[in-house]
Amino acid sequence: MCVEVITTGNELMSGLTRDTNFSWVAAELSSSGIGIRYHCTVADNLEDILASFATASTRARFVIVTGGLGPTEDDLSALAASKFLRTPLVFNPAVYQDISQKLKQRGREPNIHHQKQAMFPEKVTVIENPVGTAAGFSFLSGNSKFYFLPGVPREFRHMFREHVLPDISNTAERGTVLRVRVLRTFGLGESEVAEKLRGLSTEGVNVGYRIRLPEVHLRLTASGDDSEALDSILDDVCAQAKEKLGYFLFSRQDESLEKVTSSFLLEKDLTLSVAESCTGGLFSSRFTDIPGSSAYFLGGAVIYSNESKEKLLGVSADKLARFGAVSEQVVSEMAYCARELFGSDIGISISGIAGPGGGTPEKPVGTVWFGLSHESSGTLCEKRNFTGSRDEIKSFASSTAIDMVRKFCLDYVK
Amino acid sequence: MCVEVITTGNELMSGLTRDTNFSWVAAELSSSGIGIRYHCTVADNLEDILASFATASTRARFVIVTGGLGPTEDDLSALAASKFLRTPLVFNPAVYQDISQKLKQRGREPNIHHQKQAMFPEKVTVIENPVGTAAGFSFLSGNSKFYFLPGVPREFRHMFREHVLPDISNTAERGTVLRVRVLRTFGLGESEVAEKLRGLSTEGVNVGYRIRLPEVHLRLTASGDDSEALDSILDDVCAQAKEKLGYFLFSRQDESLEKVTSSFLLEKDLTLSVAESCTGGLFSSRFTDIPGSSAYFLGGAVIYSNESKEKLLGVSADKLARFGAVSEQVVSEMAYCARELFGSDIGISISGIAGPGGGTPEKPVGTVWFGLSHESSGTLCEKRNFTGSRDEIKSFASSTAIDMVRKFCLDYVK
Repeated sequence: MCVEVITTGNELMSGLTRDTNFSWVAAELSSSGIGIRYHCTVADNLEDILASFATASTRARFVIVTGGLGPTEDDLSALAASKFLRTPLVFNPAVYQDISQKLKQRGREPNIHHQKQAMFPEKVTVIENPVGTAAGFSFLSGNSKFYFLPGVPREFRHMFREHVLPDISNTAERGTVLRVRVLRTFGLGESEVAEKLRGLSTEGVNVGYRIRLPEVHLRLTASGDDSEALDSILDDVCAQAKEKLGYFLFSRQDESLEKVTSSFLLEKDLTLSVAESCTGGLFSSRFTDIPGSSAYFLGGAVIYSNESKEKLLGVSADKLARFGAVSEQVVSEMAYCARELFGSDIGISISGIAGPGGGTPEKPVGTVWFGLSHESSGTLCEKRNFTGSRDEIKSFASSTAIDMVRKFCLDYVK
Repeated sequence: MCVEVITTGNELMSGLTRDTNFSWVAAELSSSGIGIRYHCTVADNLEDILASFATASTRARFVIVTGGLGPTEDDLSALAASKFLRTPLVFNPAVYQDISQKLKQRGREPNIHHQKQAMFPEKVTVIENPVGTAAGFSFLSGNSKFYFLPGVPREFRHMFREHVLPDISNTAERGTVLRVRVLRTFGLGESEVAEKLRGLSTEGVNVGYRIRLPEVHLRLTASGDDSEALDSILDDVCAQAKEKLGYFLFSRQDESLEKVTSSFLLEKDLTLSVAESCTGGLFSSRFTDIPGSSAYFLGGAVIYSNESKEKLLGVSADKLARFGAVSEQVVSEMAYCARELFGSDIGISISGIAGPGGGTPEKPVGTVWFGLSHESSGTLCEKRNFTGSRDEIKSFASSTAIDMVRKFCLDYVK
């Protein structure tokens, strides 16, 4: 059983775009116990694409080709397939009708370029694309089964999962199963995580680190032929890690910090609002990425000027003048005001200097104050000093605030 | 002149890590006018690594191998090179001393694993690693020059720039320079862009598409030996494209929609605020990603409940009850209220259904209303129907609202 992936596109070969489909499909296959043996990237060049098909057909049982199915001239995959198979491209009326219908639903008309997307090599099997206009196709050549899927990640993923993965899994004479767990931590550096994990017994388990600042993730993998036994070994290592890492470990299921925190808010029946300055809406945006967040996230104020801190939130002008917007006194009031304004159980505030400008010797770029207000506990304030680019400071600060909510929920008893 | 890149590593083949070195080196080479012709990824498996060296040596003038130079057992690149060259691995005392010194500076002692990092095939040229312990090496085999560099991105980049790039640039019988332009469009599908561009004269220019929904980007590349002539050809194609695409073309310099819009706001001396519902802070967050945005972005309200729309913004309860939150009447009032509340020149409002829940037959998931209020023009409202996941709808809606601001600025005369 040998799988090869061919990713196509000039934008990949010139470094303008980073390929995400390969790592995604590799992870999908590996979690089903199927390894990829070969991967190559080729430019939108008929000769190179044909050469890659020829090589793949001599060594791989399954060949997954991504990209090159769009409506424009540089999309060459169907043409290359027809040359490879030595069959002409023929027009498929059913696919064309489907494309036309999809376009009409969006209030658009099909044009000449869409006809190209309905041209396939003779005798191939069409793979439907329920989420876009570029249909895929598959064929058998000698011992190799080729699958052609679009490069747009959403479409590629959907069609791979619906069609290709079941097909490969059925054919595959497997044997070994790979099991993977990803544990996520927040609040420790890589070496601090490693230090806390000293003495972890990990027989039969491979432990790797994945750094996703400000988070550090641990990747536990185990392979063998008995999936239940593997799960039990991994469960044991996870339990040990939890013991050693305590509340720094926030997910054993590779979930985001906001997702975990949202589950706690729902479970403890708490509602949330925010007044954010330097994070500029990122805290709100991360919470509202989660379906159903309107149940506990009541709203936010993005307040970039002192005037709006006063006018919108009701922070006292006197405090702003005396202590400055980036101060314990002001975030404390902001958190309280957010809670009052939105009528939520918890009010969060974030005020800091994201840079690159605006720093002073006392409050350098990266200085951020946080507040959390709740009826039962008054207002808790924390200060952090982050380093990094503007984006990184926004990201670190929003994570820190989300983590304050998570920890508050953990300890909260009604 | 033909360059091949071979990236090695089990963590890449299993999808647990996404390769960043290939796209980085591709961009570096391309901006020096050197294209990569072949790229493949191989697992930490001696047989496959050797096969990839053999193939590369038949087709490439320069071969860049990344990864596999670490201290552990699964790091096989030096061993594979020695087998490929049919020469033994020999201990290099100078490299070992350098490694020992670096470790001592960090308060650590070299151990047996570090000796492995000082073993190289006979007669290769060592490439120093000033930022880590894994030295690289290079050799000539037939017509192919091989470079071996570590996979850690910081070390890889440093050594590539210091050593490999100058070497390739000097050896290269170039004469050819590559020039790239990226044009960004918003508001059209890929085939609509192609339709509008029909009749574009692109002699000497390669036109490629890059899809970044909801945007469609055009990549224009030209190569030759006279960079001024290439620039002038590209300028001409850009001007034609601008003519044909009109205001759908928002950047000829690969800039983000929010960046372009921010420049207009500054230029026209306009300030902005927003009241956003379904985008949940993403509109604010995108604007505040831009350094210096506090000069024109005054703030935002993320209002997820009807209650906060009334209380915070002052939208009339009667309108909310009669028309619903996702309606022309309500977004019109929201935009006006945001402008009043923050005292900005422009007030934007966004209200819609991001899904997956909350849709109705009249207002399905993806229905979004937008408002833009300005003293001179009253309030403009628009409705869109997006399809896709929650994330995608948030992203499309925030882009649409940013584009409304951009178009308003384009037409605005004080």
